[in-house]
Amino acid sequence: MSGFQLDPRLVADSVFLADGPLSQVRLMNDARYRWLLLVPRVDGAVEWLDLDGGQQRLLLAEINRVGALLRAEPGTAKLNIGALGNIVRQLHVHLVARRDGDAAWPGPVWGHGSAEPYGAEDLSRHVETWRQRLR
Amino acid sequence: MSGFQLDPRLVADSVFLADGPLSQVRLMNDARYRWLLLVPRVDGAVEWLDLDGGQQRLLLAEINRVGALLRAEPGTAKLNIGALGNIVRQLHVHLVARRDGDAAWPGPVWGHGSAEPYGAEDLSRHVETWRQRLR
Repeated sequence: MSGFQLDPRLVADSVFLADGPLSQVRLMNDARYRWLLLVPRVDGAVEWLDLDGGQQRLLLAEINRVGALLRAEPGTAKLNIGALGNIVRQLHVHLVARRDGDAAWPGPVWGHGSAEPYGAEDLSRHVETWRQRLR
Repeated sequence: MSGFQLDPRLVADSVFLADGPLSQVRLMNDARYRWLLLVPRVDGAVEWLDLDGGQQRLLLAEINRVGALLRAEPGTAKLNIGALGNIVRQLHVHLVARRDGDAAWPGPVWGHGSAEPYGAEDLSRHVETWRQRLR
């Protein structure tokens, strides 16, 4: 895993929160949603199917943990989980706490309008909160 | 699981292919994509997190099996896997073999235009092929 490098578009669109057993946990810098990413630290992984059984079980545990935290966010109507990768091929799993009436509701968040980055104060507050939750 | 009932919108939009260990496998009746659904036969399940550990492992095995078949479809550029449920709340997992240049490429298939149902002959041919593959 020493060769792990994050895709530059993931670096640009999201902020590091924590390292899980398999994945980097990152906050998407888009204030419209509560949206986290899991990026497995597995060199060259593109598809979910590229992970071996042990890696899949680790990722599943991370999805359960992060998903439960997102589901507990006030106002969450539905959790959306997706692995698409049509644009950024590096394997990454989206977890989004959807609220009834949010910017893309009830459609998918991917490809809907443009991200609305957090202001600097707001971003550092969210990052700090998430780092504490993920500790 | 005796109380399992399929949401009427899933019945209307897709066709039964096979019963896996946990889930019904269904073909989305949309000729624009190669698009299968897994619908766990678990009464009342809405979120991935509603499944217990054993059910999650069964669903994961089904995702691996069906995903590998879809990835092997000619022209597949990327597999998309998603659990959204903003409209149909009954838990269902989408697996879509995306082709470079397909109707929604590189955006998500969900909410993109209207489904283009297969013609009758074409539908029965696809259903038969998938049933054989899933046997």
